[in-house]
Amino acid sequence: MSVEETEDLQPKWNADGLIAAIAQDAESKDILMIAWMNEEALRKTIETGEAHYWSRSRKELWHKGATSGNIQKIASILIDCDQDAILLMVEQVGSAACHTGRKSCFYRSVGKDLKLTFTD
Amino acid sequence: MSVEETEDLQPKWNADGLIAAIAQDAESKDILMIAWMNEEALRKTIETGEAHYWSRSRKELWHKGATSGNIQKIASILIDCDQDAILLMVEQVGSAACHTGRKSCFYRSVGKDLKLTFTD
Repeated sequence: MSVEETEDLQPKWNADGLIAAIAQDAESKDILMIAWMNEEALRKTIETGEAHYWSRSRKELWHKGATSGNIQKIASILIDCDQDAILLMVEQVGSAACHTGRKSCFYRSVGKDLKLTFTD
Repeated sequence: MSVEETEDLQPKWNADGLIAAIAQDAESKDILMIAWMNEEALRKTIETGEAHYWSRSRKELWHKGATSGNIQKIASILIDCDQDAILLMVEQVGSAACHTGRKSCFYRSVGKDLKLTFTD
């Protein structure tokens, strides 16, 4: 069975043992953020129903919102065709997914002149 | 000016010179796919208004849909707080973003039993 058609979870970890994880607001469908998961982060996310990531800067498991209160409750988890990316449909608790205090990390648009325009 | 608050485009390329790029349907807000861009792919995307990626398997610039016809017309381009991820809001021409022929690459949900359920 090809990786695209199997019903078995077979994450394709990269050389650092990580997989990209997109968090999307399940209701508004806004993209909130993108982060990384290792095997433990994915397992804890599935088990607890709250988003866990791997912090590449702090090199530690990161239970999103554990200190800020801005946890992400999992509505559903999807995986892509070649199983090297995860999509979390979440309920974002609190006002912000982004560490800048904004709802989403994607708050600047890129213009043809390569200048950024703030949308939030 | 911090990377989070600057109006200057300063992509944070990874060790391979790449940045993650999410494609989202601008109308339905469904996530279509995630791929990678190098500097040329990002530049061509901005200049032409059609999504270009870097194919890690073929190691070449990839004008999405150039052969299949399933091009992605750019509605807007966003960049995240630390400028290491791009979000393309696109009009997906043709029926599929995924190479399997499906609209989206995220067509399987992950269950608590670690089994995948097809949603498309």
